[in-house]
Amino acid sequence: MFYTTDSNRHGLAHDPFKAIVSPRPIGWIGSKGGDGSINLAPYSFFNAVSDRPKLVMFSSSGRKDSQRNAAETGAFTCSFVSRNLADKMNLSSAALPYGDSEFDFAGLTAKQAELVDAPYVGEAFAVLECKVTEIIEPKTLSGEPSENVFVFGEVVGIHIDEAIVRDGRIDMSLARPVARLGYMDYSETSEVFEMFRPRSQQG
Amino acid sequence: MFYTTDSNRHGLAHDPFKAIVSPRPIGWIGSKGGDGSINLAPYSFFNAVSDRPKLVMFSSSGRKDSQRNAAETGAFTCSFVSRNLADKMNLSSAALPYGDSEFDFAGLTAKQAELVDAPYVGEAFAVLECKVTEIIEPKTLSGEPSENVFVFGEVVGIHIDEAIVRDGRIDMSLARPVARLGYMDYSETSEVFEMFRPRSQQG
Repeated sequence: MFYTTDSNRHGLAHDPFKAIVSPRPIGWIGSKGGDGSINLAPYSFFNAVSDRPKLVMFSSSGRKDSQRNAAETGAFTCSFVSRNLADKMNLSSAALPYGDSEFDFAGLTAKQAELVDAPYVGEAFAVLECKVTEIIEPKTLSGEPSENVFVFGEVVGIHIDEAIVRDGRIDMSLARPVARLGYMDYSETSEVFEMFRPRSQQG
Repeated sequence: MFYTTDSNRHGLAHDPFKAIVSPRPIGWIGSKGGDGSINLAPYSFFNAVSDRPKLVMFSSSGRKDSQRNAAETGAFTCSFVSRNLADKMNLSSAALPYGDSEFDFAGLTAKQAELVDAPYVGEAFAVLECKVTEIIEPKTLSGEPSENVFVFGEVVGIHIDEAIVRDGRIDMSLARPVARLGYMDYSETSEVFEMFRPRSQQG
């Protein structure tokens, strides 16, 4: 089947877009407001986007607390979600009034980052500490604004729980990261396989 | 353990950054150059970044053919990788001379997109046809340029193989999308679970 997004008449029970672009990694964004309140929320319109330097981005649908806080303090953290934290990650997506802590609501430990002014999830297997590099309102074909705002940050510090490291590598069977699919679906990373890059055919 | 990225002295056998931000979806980017040559390459610094309108982005490490072609023709496609296409996806990452077709090299069918001037993978379970909205050189804390260039596109058309649709939804156990982890690791999406959003606590 083929359809155009201007009508978006896909004829299915639910819009399939987010199911197509999957599995998406979950950045559990910790941030602090100018008033000192702390916030935590999961984003799956999130990814690493550069290795040198290490840059990540998350896309906020509407002007939400994470984006507001990142703009106010110039910082955020990304904690990562292992299978045993999935329920708490989901709880932290509740729409609480501004200033209420999702850490408290979900029963998570808010730890203060080392290098930036933002909290992170103490229970997470890995955490990135990030300084905001830019916040962008994306261009669209119609010229109408998107609902979304993109927050980019450079990673300045990295926490890793040594319990998930084996032979100098992060072992995915120990970390068991959760990813976002479409609808209400999530996946657990379990079936891992290796492929080596093909030899260059160039030059 | 904690380390700063300015020294990047993580003390592990391999840089863990890409393993931490995982699993990453794979956008298999099809593009056509101004000279009519076609290109295909997998990107995992790739994601959906907006739902209304539907925007995706991929980050090219260096000025590669996909980014060059997207700039020249203003278009690209994203095909998606099911488990049975993983080997061919990997083959398509070979560095071929500019103008040589990775479709031919990997034994894949190049189909012409409906709405944009770019090829896509005929065997893929889903394909997005995209028009370039902007190409950005990201800001960094040091002011030095990143190796990476971000290509953003708006989705104008969507193909879905009806064989993966069940009860009006894409069934991940039929699509079996492949994701990128760290090192040479990939995962297959197999263990799926549902979680429903917590009730709003606001207002």
